[in-house]
Amino acid sequence: MKAPELGIKIGVFEHGRRNSIADLGVKVGHKTLIEGEDVRTGITVLIPPVRNPYRERLFASTFVMNGFSKPVGFVQVDELGYIETPIALTNTLSIYTVANAMVKHMIELNPDLKSVSPLVMECNDAYLNNVKKMAIKEEHYFEAVKNASLDFEEGSVGAGTGMSAFEFKGGVGSSSRVVEIGGEEYTVASLVLANFGRREDLTIAGVPVGVKLKDYPGKGTLGRGSISIVVATDAPLTARQLKRLAKRAIVGLARTGGYAYHGSGDVVLAFSTAQTVPLDKEPQLISFLPDNALSKLFKATAEATEEAIVNALLQARTMKGNGHVRYALPVGEILKMLLP
Amino acid sequence: MKAPELGIKIGVFEHGRRNSIADLGVKVGHKTLIEGEDVRTGITVLIPPVRNPYRERLFASTFVMNGFSKPVGFVQVDELGYIETPIALTNTLSIYTVANAMVKHMIELNPDLKSVSPLVMECNDAYLNNVKKMAIKEEHYFEAVKNASLDFEEGSVGAGTGMSAFEFKGGVGSSSRVVEIGGEEYTVASLVLANFGRREDLTIAGVPVGVKLKDYPGKGTLGRGSISIVVATDAPLTARQLKRLAKRAIVGLARTGGYAYHGSGDVVLAFSTAQTVPLDKEPQLISFLPDNALSKLFKATAEATEEAIVNALLQARTMKGNGHVRYALPVGEILKMLLP
Amino acid sequence: MKAPELGIKIGVFEHGRRNSIADLGVKVGHKTLIEGEDVRTGITVLIPPVRNPYRERLFASTFVMNGFSKPVGFVQVDELGYIETPIALTNTLSIYTVANAMVKHMIELNPDLKSVSPLVMECNDAYLNNVKKMAIKEEHYFEAVKNASLDFEEGSVGAGTGMSAFEFKGGVGSSSRVVEIGGEEYTVASLVLANFGRREDLTIAGVPVGVKLKDYPGKGTLGRGSISIVVATDAPLTARQLKRLAKRAIVGLARTGGYAYHGSGDVVLAFSTAQTVPLDKEPQLISFLPDNALSKLFKATAEATEEAIVNALLQARTMKGNGHVRYALPVGEILKMLLP
Amino acid sequence: MKAPELGIKIGVFEHGRRNSIADLGVKVGHKTLIEGEDVRTGITVLIPPVRNPYRERLFASTFVMNGFSKPVGFVQVDELGYIETPIALTNTLSIYTVANAMVKHMIELNPDLKSVSPLVMECNDAYLNNVKKMAIKEEHYFEAVKNASLDFEEGSVGAGTGMSAFEFKGGVGSSSRVVEIGGEEYTVASLVLANFGRREDLTIAGVPVGVKLKDYPGKGTLGRGSISIVVATDAPLTARQLKRLAKRAIVGLARTGGYAYHGSGDVVLAFSTAQTVPLDKEPQLISFLPDNALSKLFKATAEATEEAIVNALLQARTMKGNGHVRYALPVGEILKMLLP
Repeated sequence: MKAPELGIKIGVFEHGRRNSIADLGVKVGHKTLIEGEDVRTGITVLIPPVRNPYRERLFASTFVMNGFSKPVGFVQVDELGYIETPIALTNTLSIYTVANAMVKHMIELNPDLKSVSPLVMECNDAYLNNVKKMAIKEEHYFEAVKNASLDFEEGSVGAGTGMSAFEFKGGVGSSSRVVEIGGEEYTVASLVLANFGRREDLTIAGVPVGVKLKDYPGKGTLGRGSISIVVATDAPLTARQLKRLAKRAIVGLARTGGYAYHGSGDVVLAFSTAQTVPLDKEPQLISFLPDNALSKLFKATAEATEEAIVNALLQARTMKGNGHVRYALPVGEILKMLLP
Repeated sequence: MKAPELGIKIGVFEHGRRNSIADLGVKVGHKTLIEGEDVRTGITVLIPPVRNPYRERLFASTFVMNGFSKPVGFVQVDELGYIETPIALTNTLSIYTVANAMVKHMIELNPDLKSVSPLVMECNDAYLNNVKKMAIKEEHYFEAVKNASLDFEEGSVGAGTGMSAFEFKGGVGSSSRVVEIGGEEYTVASLVLANFGRREDLTIAGVPVGVKLKDYPGKGTLGRGSISIVVATDAPLTARQLKRLAKRAIVGLARTGGYAYHGSGDVVLAFSTAQTVPLDKEPQLISFLPDNALSKLFKATAEATEEAIVNALLQARTMKGNGHVRYALPVGEILKMLLP
Repeated sequence: MKAPELGIKIGVFEHGRRNSIADLGVKVGHKTLIEGEDVRTGITVLIPPVRNPYRERLFASTFVMNGFSKPVGFVQVDELGYIETPIALTNTLSIYTVANAMVKHMIELNPDLKSVSPLVMECNDAYLNNVKKMAIKEEHYFEAVKNASLDFEEGSVGAGTGMSAFEFKGGVGSSSRVVEIGGEEYTVASLVLANFGRREDLTIAGVPVGVKLKDYPGKGTLGRGSISIVVATDAPLTARQLKRLAKRAIVGLARTGGYAYHGSGDVVLAFSTAQTVPLDKEPQLISFLPDNALSKLFKATAEATEEAIVNALLQARTMKGNGHVRYALPVGEILKMLLP
Repeated sequence: MKAPELGIKIGVFEHGRRNSIADLGVKVGHKTLIEGEDVRTGITVLIPPVRNPYRERLFASTFVMNGFSKPVGFVQVDELGYIETPIALTNTLSIYTVANAMVKHMIELNPDLKSVSPLVMECNDAYLNNVKKMAIKEEHYFEAVKNASLDFEEGSVGAGTGMSAFEFKGGVGSSSRVVEIGGEEYTVASLVLANFGRREDLTIAGVPVGVKLKDYPGKGTLGRGSISIVVATDAPLTARQLKRLAKRAIVGLARTGGYAYHGSGDVVLAFSTAQTVPLDKEPQLISFLPDNALSKLFKATAEATEEAIVNALLQARTMKGNGHVRYALPVGEILKMLLP
């Protein structure tokens, strides 16, 4: 169960209907690979709510809090201000296989395509997964795409299968927030691949629960964390404004106990579903919110990201692999600490 | 009193002897201007621990979390990787007067100087201070320099005189942390000019005290916050590494309830006192810590910044001015919320 | 005379009617200070074509090629994507005096203003001018504003009074280009304060004229160059696109023999006069050109900047000051080298 | 033949012994794929002069002039300031295959590796090559590595096989320059994958040869250019300084007629072979040149890059493929234009 269902309230804004990035129409598909003793990995794909992402480009931007990370495609997003593909998450050594598959996916949809910039972000699941086996194949990407749905699982699935967070089992989490600006309702959501943090730092809804769990079994870290964050909104924003939004995801990260330690690559991609990027040569009209309307969206981004991380932890299950074990967060104990 | 003296423990590392940026040998001088009904402002100057900052340049870098700010000198710091002057803090409309005075200060010290890049950071104290009066004069800078000392006041003094934070009285705060890396002790400290935040967001040591103070008198904001943060360390770091450090100050900011709202210019300058920048044309040796040793410094930077903000609030006193009043944080009530 | 009047053709596009930034409606005003033996300096102010720049903000961005420079206001432009004041150029040690005057100017126009981010760029005229005298006073800024006109002088005037370029007399230069995109005509113009370059590098219209002038008298440099470039266009562009435009000014710089040497602070500010930035909280429509229409504007920006630099040289006159002399470019000899 | 052998002098500095990036000990290996009617592509690999690039990391940085490009690995280089792999160049849709192969290459060399950030840069050879065929396989990377040598071909080989530049045949080119700083000799070299430019813009040694070749057959462009540039030096520089060097490669690009048109992704990677990055946790000494010694290196970087582009054109041979033909630059005609 996610935080609100457990009675954990993070922040002040209400969440959307699904309390996930699906509230923006983004479909999420997983391919989970659990094989033998040492394969615990997968792919998670986010499909933007357009028919053909290569033709119906969406405004986007990025923010790199800690660039000890290998995101594929960020250079072009920052120059051109849009995304032109789905967004995939996977393990560190499999991003190029997934990028290759995404190129082929886009060629299928657009036979005349001659250039495309896939977007793949990563965390390193080497604690539970034998990354060097490079178990992920291109077909797994297409399976993940086929599985994409507005109803999707979180926790130890897809790219989250082998991830760890705060020395507990980590993985995929998502959350959304709804804000009212100038009489209009806008939604902002975050989906995270959480694989970072030291147990002693874990903070949920302001309560430093991690220090109280220091004797709970399963401690240990490879020192290679990371978090990849995707933020989506239906507010009409330009690329410059989306960079501002992306930065506020880090506020949410910090509030869970994230310090962006040296080995933790912490990166954010933000996009808006409000309108597609004009393609012709003539000047075209776009709609956007003035910057002085953004503060609520900033706070909502922080809240959605904070809860997305907590949701990843709450929904992940204990996993053994690669000679290690990661325990699920002891939700009962957590609730006792949080609730009066 | 600062947080530790009140029994408030922020973070896990120990603070240095003075629990301030003076632990790095940085002297801090204030000039406070309280005149008539509407002048509540001032200058705070930080003097690096060298005889002549223009000749004994220190490695430095910056990070801009929210660039709705007017820091003077950041472009050059980012290109050349060093500071060559003291660092001053003042109100938004007085930074150019202070920069002018700093230029004259550097010419006095270096009669052959032909170019210099002063460093002045600002927050807007327009709630308690009639900023448009531009009451600060160049001589005030020199008074602040003369006042510089390792023992310095915090709270509603100097640049902090008219500042507000979380709809309470804000101002200047500082804190330090000591970490051990590879057998060596290093200190990192933060000094903040805190003038940001909504009351409902205020969080101290993880406890959301702000929401419980929503009926405490004195609410109201102009929506123009900001925080200027100076981080100093004696760890030998390059400019690139100091940018990494500067980013972690934002983690501390976030943990107090900072969301970097649209109107809040949130900027960081970080420098190292460990060694001066070589000046000759021949290759020269510098010492620096490998990046894989930085995680403790990152966390310490976040902790020192978090506590520096709290210290600003704890030490500021109620101030009336410009037709408004800002109440000091009710420390007694806060302690009741924080301590069991 | 400017390059085209002398028969020197730079690039392929036609220039606008005035062949200057005035083709965008930008008025330019100078205040020239020539006093005694050692004051050779001044101010140049660019007034955007709006009634009140603080209320009618224009989309803008910056690019820093070499940040050994002290531009005032760049941090905010890059965050918010607009300018809210005129743009002034002056000598390195006078930028804060000019910024102060601009703050007062904006307060006059907007008595309710509580924050404003002046834009002042600089080069160092220390070869011909005793910069440490800080001869520029706030009233000079207001004189420059009063002098602003669509018809303005170039060369050794205003901020250009004491500047040197390629070891000849430098100063202010401007040029414009007109391009046709999607059936519409757009103008892009550049105004430069040229104070950079070694004589041996000077290249005009592709011809390495500098090497042939190596024995012409007046060589010598302090090694402190710099160029500040302002690009304006009436094409509707977002801040992100204007950053792309700003980068192309460097192509023009390179073609004149600019290498962005260590000591030369080379910075660009670009803005669009096409529309003002929305101020209310509701979503608003703006018009903009798709990025695939920008190539002609990129080339036109490079050409206008290349010619602006050449125009500065062609129009500057020999100047003595501060114990040095800078000779005007020997235009007759240049023409012999360029024209068949 | 390269420019100097043809009597074309670009710039003022002398080149190194091999006039290529091999002057830094960097070995270059090609794999050329010419198959059937429509495969005209390949890989070029640069091997840094260390035994194991993953363990003997070299200081590095990047500069993105125009981010319509897909370089793999830039985010990590900019955070950590080093490269940890060889550098490969290939076509736009094959970079992920090559990155995958490079990951496997590094795992072979370092069986305990759990994370690695391959560096692959690209241009789009879609004019002569059927990119969508994705003809490049992982084994081709290993062949290119095996072929690596200090003596390597330039022009239409390896990644350069299908590239076009200025509507002539483009490809791989390299050049070096030797400068003396503080009594020491340093070398800087550039290797480019040149696939950009409109014929009318081509400028060689300052002479606008392109306009005179406008009726030469073979014009036509897909509008998808790009140039990937690798700069190497044996001067001891930090990552911050290498970013300054990387920017100056754009000066060389501009002097050949490069305007960084919208569709041309123009990116630079710069690294220093002078010393490896410390790995332990204790402070370590590194040697570096003060910034005031860099101007000669800046100019040398521009010159080496300008000549590298010209060398690519001079050495490329006419190629048919994918229904198009690209003619070699008519060197004889060029020489007539350049030489008196």
